[in-house]
Amino acid sequence: MDQLIIADKKFNSRLLLGTGKFGSNAEMEDAILASGSEMVTVALKRVDLETDTEQIITHLQHPHLTLLPNTSGVRNAKEAVFAAQLAREALETNWLKLEIHPDPKYLMPDPIETLKATEELAKLGFIILPYIHADPVLCKRLEDAGTAAVMPLGSPIGTNKGLKAEVFLEIIIEQSRVPVIIDAGIGAPSDAAKAMEMGADAVLVNTAIAVAGDPSKMAEAFKLAVLSGRIAYEAKLGKISKFAAASSPLTAFLNE
Amino acid sequence: MDQLIIADKKFNSRLLLGTGKFGSNAEMEDAILASGSEMVTVALKRVDLETDTEQIITHLQHPHLTLLPNTSGVRNAKEAVFAAQLAREALETNWLKLEIHPDPKYLMPDPIETLKATEELAKLGFIILPYIHADPVLCKRLEDAGTAAVMPLGSPIGTNKGLKAEVFLEIIIEQSRVPVIIDAGIGAPSDAAKAMEMGADAVLVNTAIAVAGDPSKMAEAFKLAVLSGRIAYEAKLGKISKFAAASSPLTAFLNE
Amino acid sequence: MDQLIIADKKFNSRLLLGTGKFGSNAEMEDAILASGSEMVTVALKRVDLETDTEQIITHLQHPHLTLLPNTSGVRNAKEAVFAAQLAREALETNWLKLEIHPDPKYLMPDPIETLKATEELAKLGFIILPYIHADPVLCKRLEDAGTAAVMPLGSPIGTNKGLKAEVFLEIIIEQSRVPVIIDAGIGAPSDAAKAMEMGADAVLVNTAIAVAGDPSKMAEAFKLAVLSGRIAYEAKLGKISKFAAASSPLTAFLNE
Amino acid sequence: MDQLIIADKKFNSRLLLGTGKFGSNAEMEDAILASGSEMVTVALKRVDLETDTEQIITHLQHPHLTLLPNTSGVRNAKEAVFAAQLAREALETNWLKLEIHPDPKYLMPDPIETLKATEELAKLGFIILPYIHADPVLCKRLEDAGTAAVMPLGSPIGTNKGLKAEVFLEIIIEQSRVPVIIDAGIGAPSDAAKAMEMGADAVLVNTAIAVAGDPSKMAEAFKLAVLSGRIAYEAKLGKISKFAAASSPLTAFLNE
Repeated sequence: MDQLIIADKKFNSRLLLGTGKFGSNAEMEDAILASGSEMVTVALKRVDLETDTEQIITHLQHPHLTLLPNTSGVRNAKEAVFAAQLAREALETNWLKLEIHPDPKYLMPDPIETLKATEELAKLGFIILPYIHADPVLCKRLEDAGTAAVMPLGSPIGTNKGLKAEVFLEIIIEQSRVPVIIDAGIGAPSDAAKAMEMGADAVLVNTAIAVAGDPSKMAEAFKLAVLSGRIAYEAKLGKISKFAAASSPLTAFLNE
Repeated sequence: MDQLIIADKKFNSRLLLGTGKFGSNAEMEDAILASGSEMVTVALKRVDLETDTEQIITHLQHPHLTLLPNTSGVRNAKEAVFAAQLAREALETNWLKLEIHPDPKYLMPDPIETLKATEELAKLGFIILPYIHADPVLCKRLEDAGTAAVMPLGSPIGTNKGLKAEVFLEIIIEQSRVPVIIDAGIGAPSDAAKAMEMGADAVLVNTAIAVAGDPSKMAEAFKLAVLSGRIAYEAKLGKISKFAAASSPLTAFLNE
Repeated sequence: MDQLIIADKKFNSRLLLGTGKFGSNAEMEDAILASGSEMVTVALKRVDLETDTEQIITHLQHPHLTLLPNTSGVRNAKEAVFAAQLAREALETNWLKLEIHPDPKYLMPDPIETLKATEELAKLGFIILPYIHADPVLCKRLEDAGTAAVMPLGSPIGTNKGLKAEVFLEIIIEQSRVPVIIDAGIGAPSDAAKAMEMGADAVLVNTAIAVAGDPSKMAEAFKLAVLSGRIAYEAKLGKISKFAAASSPLTAFLNE
Repeated sequence: MDQLIIADKKFNSRLLLGTGKFGSNAEMEDAILASGSEMVTVALKRVDLETDTEQIITHLQHPHLTLLPNTSGVRNAKEAVFAAQLAREALETNWLKLEIHPDPKYLMPDPIETLKATEELAKLGFIILPYIHADPVLCKRLEDAGTAAVMPLGSPIGTNKGLKAEVFLEIIIEQSRVPVIIDAGIGAPSDAAKAMEMGADAVLVNTAIAVAGDPSKMAEAFKLAVLSGRIAYEAKLGKISKFAAASSPLTAFLNE
């Protein structure tokens, strides 16, 4: 399987993990290791105001792991730029998952503020991976503004609903010149496999692993699903047809 | 991962393969080996009247492989019983995939003849795996008649349409006391993963692998997908919800 | 719009109604009249053992209404034939909705018993409309056995899940020489419209109307939906495409 | 059925029509009249550079019809504002369908330019109905910028794919304080009925009618479907369940 390249950095795994909602930091660490993931997102708030006795960051100190601080919680471009700068200082990385959602219920991303923040942050040298609606035109504009990848949603975040934006994701994948990482809503390994079969470059999963009966085992399932989907994409799926081809061997033999 | 048990025989793999439609017998053999499958179906016609210079059976002589002769091509119970007996003699096995489809276009199975043939073949000592519509009541009746498993379809055979009978397969899986093997229509690894996540005991794939751009590679993708789906089933998927839970860390931090 | 013809009887309406689950007999009658339906099913039990002070039958005494007694509650062919004969005597009609479901949870129909009962009842002069799984081969066999129509399900009865058997219903509609009436699972007018657009000859609705906030108003909505779907079928839907045709007027004008 | 109110104007019909792609202006006029629509969109280009001998506008001179000029063909806010002013002058109306799509293949709308143009056009006194992606946050921002309604897409324009953005449309409908008109992709009356059942205030249809076998008849089908869906919305649909409620009369009677 070929490697994933984002901003000149190479990854063997095409599965990104979020670190929210786990029962404990140890459970989170186990799941990350089981997933084979090489990039995990970290909400700034969790880093700054750690209420647990353990620091989350100590659980993410693995040489193969790239930390991707995210701005989750900010509501506009100004807050995002401020948060990004804090994150760069705190985590000593210019990689950034840009997430701006003014909507407290569905946590849907704001296209206008996301583009504005991207334009500013690109000038400040950030490597930006924006979380956005599955909007093909917005993806192209973000690409023009200098994002390292685009992260369109599959369905509303945290819902496990799967690829409800499929028809739009297909267009994004077809048109994008930067990696497309399907983010949000992926609820089962079959969703992740499907996203990869469609040609997505990677997927990000959080809730589906964190709230599973056995998070570490579910992380392993996602690892295999992402591999499977990528291999299937490379091997090229057969066409969907209305009925079986006539070349089938399934013809009568007793009456010959 | 726990083993699949059919009629007291244990299998490590939960992926069955069909042997039709491959470009060559060598290509078929490569795909079977790449898939990790331990049970493959063989159409009787292909065995009897081999037009290729190579015999298909020589390509299936691997110690880990159980051959499952199928009666594909017969149109009623009488033909099926006759074909089954021929198969038992030719392949020296009492395992049998029972397939009766009078319809030459969609190859949909006949519920009446399938039950009738099952009743007769069970008396004759066959281990019967019937290919049937995703009909919950029929599955129970076949179980009562002594089938070793049931093989309901996902969608019409050879179409790659996936799990179009999902709502009925769920009921079958819930009610069955014998293994449920989803057969026909599975078109992509994500379909196979989904079937396993739903709790199916195994899946059978043929067209999706045989007509892929690279059949052997696609077989590997299916191997991983079936593993992934089974592990996810064991790890228990999280619930699907309307919006993200309030326990999410995704709340404002700058305004605190 | 052309008329629906079942066993030489002509109907202007292509919407059949069930009479179960209504809040009261008056509410049921209002809904039936609002729906424009000309054929309603009546469960035998409700007729025999009327616990309400009002008799249900008195609410169905409208000259435009054909009563279709159904055998709901029977579990095999023998019980069905007995119930059918009781119904013929009680309601003075040889029309019969044949419903055999041994499964008390999902009320899924039994294909074997339904065919057996059909064969017997056809000899006894009944005009039979069997409720069955969306099984294309079974439909052909029932047709051969002399049914006046076939009534495949959309999804499990009483669930409002809609057309979950769509791919199989398409095949049934394509192959049937008797009217196809989609029964069970239709949960919204859009489901009914869709069934008619696909070429179904009629639909039967019960739960979706009976449990609606306003059953009579919902009945009117279904009336319009069935009309709409039939007209659309006759007017022929355009094709589904991947993107807009180039013949679109949607091209730039300012830069010309 | 209650009336649709957009910017203080009342409409009895909740079906808007587009005027592109018809075989002739007479065919278009027939379809509009059959649809009962009271508002139709007119592409500016078609008005200015009429190559047909007949003027399209003469076919739209009906007292019950509100013309809604659209800016289809413009690629950014600046072009849109210019086009809007031309339209206001030419058609003597300040109503405007704002459509900005830089993408020549899928004609997907640009969220950034659409918001920018809306802000400018609102100041210029236009009554703006913007065509946009099914993006809940964008809808709220357009509402704040003074749109009279929002027109999110169901699926890519001209494809007849139906409501592929369903999960996002639900959120938009829940959150919007201005009328929500589902635009683009509606391919069949059942799609229109479904949109209305979900609580959309209106739908806009063009391709599905214009390319139907009989456009005028298909327009009538859409008229009925929109009515049906709205009535069903008002009558409140029953819930979707996993199996039939125990209150069903469908219980055994012969064994009592």
